[in-house]
Amino acid sequence: MNVDILLNNGLILEFNKKPEIKSITIKDGSILEVGKNLEKKYKATHIIDATDKIVMPGFVNTHSHVAMSYFKGLSDDLPLQEWLSEHIWPVEAKFLSAEFVKDAALHGCAEMIKNGITTFSDMYFFGDQTAESAEKAGIRAVLGEGVLDFPVANYQNADEIFAYIRKMHNKYEKNELIDFAVAPHAIYTCGKENLIKAKDLALELGILLHIHLSETKQEVQDCLKKNRLRPVEYLDSIGFFEGNVVVAHALWLDENEQNILAKNNSSIAINTSSNLKLASGFSSFKNYLDHGFNLSIGTDGVASNNNLSILQEISLLAKLQKALNDDPTILPAKEMIQIATIGGAKALKKSEQIGSIEVGKKADLILIDIDNIEAQPMYDPYSHLVYSSASEQIKDVIINGKIVMKDRELINIDAKELIEKAKYYQKILKLF
Amino acid sequence: MNVDILLNNGLILEFNKKPEIKSITIKDGSILEVGKNLEKKYKATHIIDATDKIVMPGFVNTHSHVAMSYFKGLSDDLPLQEWLSEHIWPVEAKFLSAEFVKDAALHGCAEMIKNGITTFSDMYFFGDQTAESAEKAGIRAVLGEGVLDFPVANYQNADEIFAYIRKMHNKYEKNELIDFAVAPHAIYTCGKENLIKAKDLALELGILLHIHLSETKQEVQDCLKKNRLRPVEYLDSIGFFEGNVVVAHALWLDENEQNILAKNNSSIAINTSSNLKLASGFSSFKNYLDHGFNLSIGTDGVASNNNLSILQEISLLAKLQKALNDDPTILPAKEMIQIATIGGAKALKKSEQIGSIEVGKKADLILIDIDNIEAQPMYDPYSHLVYSSASEQIKDVIINGKIVMKDRELINIDAKELIEKAKYYQKILKLF
Repeated sequence: MNVDILLNNGLILEFNKKPEIKSITIKDGSILEVGKNLEKKYKATHIIDATDKIVMPGFVNTHSHVAMSYFKGLSDDLPLQEWLSEHIWPVEAKFLSAEFVKDAALHGCAEMIKNGITTFSDMYFFGDQTAESAEKAGIRAVLGEGVLDFPVANYQNADEIFAYIRKMHNKYEKNELIDFAVAPHAIYTCGKENLIKAKDLALELGILLHIHLSETKQEVQDCLKKNRLRPVEYLDSIGFFEGNVVVAHALWLDENEQNILAKNNSSIAINTSSNLKLASGFSSFKNYLDHGFNLSIGTDGVASNNNLSILQEISLLAKLQKALNDDPTILPAKEMIQIATIGGAKALKKSEQIGSIEVGKKADLILIDIDNIEAQPMYDPYSHLVYSSASEQIKDVIINGKIVMKDRELINIDAKELIEKAKYYQKILKLF
Repeated sequence: MNVDILLNNGLILEFNKKPEIKSITIKDGSILEVGKNLEKKYKATHIIDATDKIVMPGFVNTHSHVAMSYFKGLSDDLPLQEWLSEHIWPVEAKFLSAEFVKDAALHGCAEMIKNGITTFSDMYFFGDQTAESAEKAGIRAVLGEGVLDFPVANYQNADEIFAYIRKMHNKYEKNELIDFAVAPHAIYTCGKENLIKAKDLALELGILLHIHLSETKQEVQDCLKKNRLRPVEYLDSIGFFEGNVVVAHALWLDENEQNILAKNNSSIAINTSSNLKLASGFSSFKNYLDHGFNLSIGTDGVASNNNLSILQEISLLAKLQKALNDDPTILPAKEMIQIATIGGAKALKKSEQIGSIEVGKKADLILIDIDNIEAQPMYDPYSHLVYSSASEQIKDVIINGKIVMKDRELINIDAKELIEKAKYYQKILKLF
């Protein structure tokens, strides 16, 4: 039988089995078989030797602002309000355009692929252009179009944005890589009326809701003051959780808020680097884990992270939670890898299609080189991935059954051109 | 004039000047000149094109156990006592030998160089073998021979260890790369008598003291119970700080302990990854900074980290401290880079020789590639180094005026052989 790709003799991470050296065949975008001696059974167009490589599902990044690529390191080590109002917002007001977003998003997609991310869930503006760049890069994306009460770069009001989302949803409905989502920015930028309209639209189109929530203590205090309810309680009171919601940040949830999210099958996108760097803080997720609800990993935008390494995020989160809970056994390595893959897929309601290596699922796979000094010795691949490895070791990336990175070379993107463009934008932004 | 190396047109980080594109010449192991158009003035044996590269002093790792390389990922996600007594100690008791240490240390030295570390301060056993491997790799090392009250792999008692240190000090006295140090393991493994002997020996030979201190709350409680003094107070009461001391961990220092360390010009080696991963905890270093004493960065051993990336440590520490202190301006990027370089040099009493780019100082330099997607755009090299970059971008490493890594290829070490050896040891250790 002919297949598109044969991944030969890799250390395969199937979550329900022990890691083992096996092969994988891929046909029409999906995983056809996982087993031994597959080279005898299939004739493959592409054969990838996976010897001395870990083969695992690609990372799912559930909270990003991919088109903020050109703001990476633009300003750091500043208080949140100064950072936003004196640096990020003015530069966005001045430069955001369809072309800027298209270029910056392509840069971000390239960086994500180099970090082993095969699916990302974004929140930004000009989703059509981000979709174009994601498609070009060959990466799977859920594009949350930002909804705010005030005018944004591309629209005068929320109703225009809702109309745009509807149009984009129709445009990309048959696209295998792209979904749209409704992304009310936050409860402090989006009033009750628009939050409800956002939820209604998401329900009507059967798409996700993606919102920043409970990121800072200030936000919680302001919400209590204004609504006499905590953020999750407030959203619950207006029926927001009737939709499929991914809540980004969610640092300051009390018991009742956790119960509400758990009851509604909502997911959390944890953004540890960004929360620490902006001094938003950190909290123990032990209670969240005990509530059994679904955690996933977000990178946030590079303006506040400042990179897109899921490996860095999971290493950071696992270690921080051990110290916070005075318990080195919490969030063991395998659980962290699952949170960063199938956890993300569940958050995006895509766990039937992606997030693990299973026959019939989409072939979103990454290959991690372990034949190097940094990776050896290796007693347990999960431990190695979470505590020892860096994105440098991610050599090959396959998304939807297509090879998008081979031996760290991007297939669909001209890296040189991308770097030149970034340098060009840097000069302009710096002058500003 | 002839020189050994000309580094041409790099973005040079001199801490007392703005980053600027300049060149550096190196002769007889030292920095001869930093300036422009040096290619017209000098004839160089080696010319390194540093275009699109940051040139900075190499990282100084002030607390490591380099020969624990083969224990990387051997056991994780376990409580400290179980990890030590059921995994690390038994395997050390069974396998530690001169040959094992030599092999494992070479692996660790290679990994350090790949992470841009040009000097490390170690604490372990069989220092002679570690010295041999460090010399082979071409890395600068301060080798603290572990002192404990009970027998260790190579010696029956502390007096034998002191004699060994004296012998090693003499053997390596003229060696440009190697220093020895006295490393009493901790106050709970080393009694008063041996602590005093250690200090006296260090003073006599003019070498460093290196000790684990105040790593866990338990250690502080036990010390209070036994000595009615906190750990630093106890060491002060026996005159320990008459020596030049590097204190590893130092998480739980109260005001008086901080005053004692500051008064004695002692330095702290911060080991954030290890402290988090073992759930030893974390503490705010704001007070430490306010006391003005010298901070430096340690990786600890790979058994508890589990890698040797100083870039990871500084990113982690800077972000964690911002969140802990509710202050995103604390430990800004440039300060972090200084802590990881000249801070380390000061800790090891080597700041006259290494830790910054200055004419006359030893040429311990690393070159970091910024001509890649992950690094662009780059507004500020310090921010880029701390928040965005990974060791992958460290391309070339020069130590003592010698190129030890070129375009990520180790010059003095056969990487293939090293990997094979690690795989061999892994099989043996795993069986055990």
